[in-house]
Amino acid sequence: MERRVVIIGAGFAGAEVARGLRSAPARAILIDQNNYQLFQPLLYQVATAALSPADIAEPIRRLVRGHPNVEVVLGEVTGISADQRTVILRDGSHIAYDVLVIAAGASPAYFGHDDWAPFAPSLKSIADARNVRSRLLRAFEEAETAGQPAERARLMTFAVVGGGPSGVELAGAIAELARYSLAKDFRQIDPKSARVLLLEKGPRLLSGFPKPLSDYAARKLTGLGVTVETNCTVKRISETAVETDSETMPVAFAIWTAGVKASPVAKMLGAPIDKGGRIKAGSDLSVPGFTDVYALGDAALVLAADGNPLPGLAQVAKQRGQYLGNALTRRFQSRAAPGPFVFHNRGNVAVIGRHAAVIDFGRLRLKGIAAWLLWALIHIYLLAGLQHRLLVAVQWFWHYLTYDRGARMIIEPSAEGREPSC
Amino acid sequence: MERRVVIIGAGFAGAEVARGLRSAPARAILIDQNNYQLFQPLLYQVATAALSPADIAEPIRRLVRGHPNVEVVLGEVTGISADQRTVILRDGSHIAYDVLVIAAGASPAYFGHDDWAPFAPSLKSIADARNVRSRLLRAFEEAETAGQPAERARLMTFAVVGGGPSGVELAGAIAELARYSLAKDFRQIDPKSARVLLLEKGPRLLSGFPKPLSDYAARKLTGLGVTVETNCTVKRISETAVETDSETMPVAFAIWTAGVKASPVAKMLGAPIDKGGRIKAGSDLSVPGFTDVYALGDAALVLAADGNPLPGLAQVAKQRGQYLGNALTRRFQSRAAPGPFVFHNRGNVAVIGRHAAVIDFGRLRLKGIAAWLLWALIHIYLLAGLQHRLLVAVQWFWHYLTYDRGARMIIEPSAEGREPSC
Repeated sequence: MERRVVIIGAGFAGAEVARGLRSAPARAILIDQNNYQLFQPLLYQVATAALSPADIAEPIRRLVRGHPNVEVVLGEVTGISADQRTVILRDGSHIAYDVLVIAAGASPAYFGHDDWAPFAPSLKSIADARNVRSRLLRAFEEAETAGQPAERARLMTFAVVGGGPSGVELAGAIAELARYSLAKDFRQIDPKSARVLLLEKGPRLLSGFPKPLSDYAARKLTGLGVTVETNCTVKRISETAVETDSETMPVAFAIWTAGVKASPVAKMLGAPIDKGGRIKAGSDLSVPGFTDVYALGDAALVLAADGNPLPGLAQVAKQRGQYLGNALTRRFQSRAAPGPFVFHNRGNVAVIGRHAAVIDFGRLRLKGIAAWLLWALIHIYLLAGLQHRLLVAVQWFWHYLTYDRGARMIIEPSAEGREPSC
Repeated sequence: MERRVVIIGAGFAGAEVARGLRSAPARAILIDQNNYQLFQPLLYQVATAALSPADIAEPIRRLVRGHPNVEVVLGEVTGISADQRTVILRDGSHIAYDVLVIAAGASPAYFGHDDWAPFAPSLKSIADARNVRSRLLRAFEEAETAGQPAERARLMTFAVVGGGPSGVELAGAIAELARYSLAKDFRQIDPKSARVLLLEKGPRLLSGFPKPLSDYAARKLTGLGVTVETNCTVKRISETAVETDSETMPVAFAIWTAGVKASPVAKMLGAPIDKGGRIKAGSDLSVPGFTDVYALGDAALVLAADGNPLPGLAQVAKQRGQYLGNALTRRFQSRAAPGPFVFHNRGNVAVIGRHAAVIDFGRLRLKGIAAWLLWALIHIYLLAGLQHRLLVAVQWFWHYLTYDRGARMIIEPSAEGREPSC
């Protein structure tokens, strides 16, 4: 009997489950609200005009082109009925399942300060990246015509909130954009004098890395002109300033990389969730109290063998997706369940800028130009599809030689909205 | 004495004027509402997911990086005071000029049917191209889940209004998108059965070309599955259908390539304009009745030596821009004015699809694979900047080998509008 496996979310976790069912007597229905899978680790490069959105977005249909038992549905999930075994979409359609896999990912969390969102956009989607890119470039344009020196200084100051890998990478990229790519293009201002503030609540940047690598990142960022502030709590963000526990800093705008919460889909199931909105799942990724429901990726909280959750990394999502695809295949083939999931650490990596990155392989630690080269190779390799690899490699090579960034377009959201949505 | 030359519009015409002033005792102020110059001839490739917007958008500041006497101002012109010799921007600032050059281009015209715009988007800007791309891809997604065969057929039918080069190129590209790029990616529908209608009011396609080339284009398009309808007047466009003088055809949506009108900036001067809103300028591009005001590009109507206007082509705009830049330089250097403008025809070209294009060099006419190869080389050459040339060449080569199109993203305008515009 062919089972219907409905997978919510075609990110790294969900897509791997679907592809893992290739030899199972099953039909996979892969639901996503976008028609593409976004390679989020390079989103900051779109936000800083180094890459185009299409370079890091793979059409889901192309991703599963060779998998005739996978169907792709473009739609937003608005409800789950575990009793009737159906998933409900915004257009009112019901999709029946035998097995449900929740891999709906996460979205930015402002921890009770949603009113900051207009002044401190986040960086989780293509729309976010385009928005940040337009605001960055527009700030320099406005500084060029600003009359007052104080206003000019404010327009050339950018705050990045959150000192994790996303914040570190973004702060470094903004500093390089100003120092190198824009340096010669203005007449009234000197883009090199732009300031980037990196604000981290904890005692050091990159808390998931060993301390020597954190220190290296802070040193390198400082060298790029980034002002690194640790033990710094943000009290308030307004249209023109960021207020911390010690001072108020006028800024063009802030960018929020300080936290995420699970997709609202996690809550729709009705299973217990943690304070980040994540579904608590067992070590086999099944959701306790439900039959034939599994959760993984950023939408789930799964404890590792040592009792701690694994970090929300692409490699964790991918490996768990492969594990679940295999486990379901074995189940449908009436074979024995696989052993418990074991995470293979492929290395934790963050890039700071040209010739500067950190990699933590557990026992081995790398920093500097070797880490930077390895970072570039890993990311080219991880991109889905030869075309993306080729295009990103060409652009990086060009950027490396010339310091130029090709995607320097300011396009206002309002211009996009000229045509009514249909 | 250094003159201030204010140039409205940084398209092919305006940018050439600014660059032509390099050795003049003058300061050029180049005003545009976008921070990039758009290479419109390839916009249809963005609309059909073959290229990314950044591939055909060159930052204006980079375009004039080597020209220290050119200043770039990002702003929308809302008024011109010829008496006070100032241009007024939306932000209220006044920009004084000694010489004014109006090169503000054109925008789509629906000839009294602006209510059709929501159902028949045009293709003149990046926002337009993204909108058409999303609507095309979404129509196939909706067809995949549509229940009724008639509704499914409607969602896979696209009307292109206007049989000029833009319409021909777009119709061919949509047909190829459906037949090749999407062919294997759906389970319920066969994208190859999609229909493209090309509706032309006149007796033949490509009326600016010799008749044998028009006939060739019609034949090739028909071979690609495009239904070519000539002598066909559109009476009404609604959300789901296009009504012509002979029938009503259900369509997913229409795309409008049937006409343009000059930018509203042309009207602000108060000089005589034609019914297309274009400023009537003399053979030296000066505006009669005004001192030190010039107009060129799609915003101007300039008659050639034979009394007819030259077509609104990129090469006409560029050559006139070079002519005016040179004429102004000679004037500021108190040298004799140049002879009258002479247009050098570089060839008129339209592409239909793979291995099929037409080129009219006047005496020489080319069609087929030779014309197609030449078309590709010409367009790579015409792109501003080595980076764009490299990226477009890589993508075309990839596309040629695999039939794949990389930029297949559906992003709703509403998603872009989540953050308030600032």
